[in-house]
Amino acid sequence: MQSSIQADKLVLEVLVATSDEHAGWVYLVGAGPGDPDLLTIKAQRLLGRADVVLHDSLIDPRTLALCKPGAKLVDVGKRSGKRSTKQTEINAILCAEARTGQKIIRLKGGDPMIFGRAAEEIEALAAIGITAQIVPGITTATAVAAALGTSLTKRGVARAVHFLTGHGADGGLPPQDWVALVRAGGTIAIYMGSQSLPGLATHLIEAGMDPTTPAIAMESATWAEQRTIRATIGTLPRLAAPFRSAGPCLFLIGEALRTTQAHTTISQADQGTLSPETPARA
Amino acid sequence: MQSSIQADKLVLEVLVATSDEHAGWVYLVGAGPGDPDLLTIKAQRLLGRADVVLHDSLIDPRTLALCKPGAKLVDVGKRSGKRSTKQTEINAILCAEARTGQKIIRLKGGDPMIFGRAAEEIEALAAIGITAQIVPGITTATAVAAALGTSLTKRGVARAVHFLTGHGADGGLPPQDWVALVRAGGTIAIYMGSQSLPGLATHLIEAGMDPTTPAIAMESATWAEQRTIRATIGTLPRLAAPFRSAGPCLFLIGEALRTTQAHTTISQADQGTLSPETPARA
Repeated sequence: MQSSIQADKLVLEVLVATSDEHAGWVYLVGAGPGDPDLLTIKAQRLLGRADVVLHDSLIDPRTLALCKPGAKLVDVGKRSGKRSTKQTEINAILCAEARTGQKIIRLKGGDPMIFGRAAEEIEALAAIGITAQIVPGITTATAVAAALGTSLTKRGVARAVHFLTGHGADGGLPPQDWVALVRAGGTIAIYMGSQSLPGLATHLIEAGMDPTTPAIAMESATWAEQRTIRATIGTLPRLAAPFRSAGPCLFLIGEALRTTQAHTTISQADQGTLSPETPARA
Repeated sequence: MQSSIQADKLVLEVLVATSDEHAGWVYLVGAGPGDPDLLTIKAQRLLGRADVVLHDSLIDPRTLALCKPGAKLVDVGKRSGKRSTKQTEINAILCAEARTGQKIIRLKGGDPMIFGRAAEEIEALAAIGITAQIVPGITTATAVAAALGTSLTKRGVARAVHFLTGHGADGGLPPQDWVALVRAGGTIAIYMGSQSLPGLATHLIEAGMDPTTPAIAMESATWAEQRTIRATIGTLPRLAAPFRSAGPCLFLIGEALRTTQAHTTISQADQGTLSPETPARA
């Protein structure tokens, strides 16, 4: 009978754990491009409630300061001197923390569902029976468009926006049908493309893109270190070279970026000069 | 000498107007997909400061309740019984309000820079010497992905995301190289596509898309009325037909949506049933 009683106790413990309000409280939260002002209200509130926050390296300290006192903050972007934590390791840390039954936030730059490798984290959690809740974030391309004052879509000019990554599984440019991409038309936004920019520009031009197509590079969008270059797809690799070893960079390419209105804080296309600038504060 | 004094006075008045903190305080603000919880902190703060808020029709009353007491709220989405206000009229209203020197917010659903016709409003303001500031918002596609728990990008499956509109200048599907779009690969998000869904699906399949490619329709994403259909691009027009006269609808199409993890609140692909659901609250 002893084993039966133990089995009953086990069932009871499982039931208690299941009904516990903390069980399975795991959120993948978008932190947006950097500026804590661009967090969602929901992200702000959840950060104040989480017991554990596993965050990317590029999160503003003011965002992390929204966490409750005593919350455990873990930078899963860098670890023990290594350059970056492997995704499989992040999945393992996330699952280990989630199993404790505490309130867990996985805080990711930008939006979790666009180049955030959220699918792998969601699947790892699902494999241990935990359904992650997702809170969307401002994705960098729209923050860059806002900072530029330039819409990504424009009637009769750009009817589509294409989001691509310049950083594939092997670290280089992922395979892409560049001719199809150029023919599809519209504005192209490239995430994590600093290292592969020369190849990227060559592919687009060889695929038929006019080399004078406007192209913009913005480094550290919405951070105090924000820098912008206005160029063309032909000149961008040369002009944006200084960005290649610095902060995160986003490229926008397309005719919609050919603005008549010059934002005074942005350097101009023909000059292609580097403009350190401080994002406007309301 | 009288005229000279008057000229000096005029110059002084212009200087005072220019240095006035209210002058040129015009923000295009993204309201996100609907849920006020998905506003940015910046949007929330600015709404509390604006004198005049010109807003789209589909803004949650709880969002408008964030405006300061006495603020003038104008629904520019509908006007004097007409179905919708023309963009040129919206531009005119926006400029007229901006000229008063008050603090103006143009509050737009989703993100202003993605299918928000922000370019036209920015240009209209620029023409009267006012530089609009832009506050990005959560764009509907990432909010839908978050609600589904399904990433728009997935290593080895979807390396790109394409945002398109189903609503062109003449109200129908805008011209598009569909073969190029399908060949470019990745996940496709269609905004404002309800009316043109049958043509859209036909174009994609004729362009070479596998008819069994997963496709999801979400109506009124993040609102209490949120409804979701999981289907394929082949079955979506039939299954999503009930959505065609109701709230705003977003379509997601692509292999990244073929999830193994079933979200319990979402109806399944094979059934394609309608699932009324209430967005989870944290």
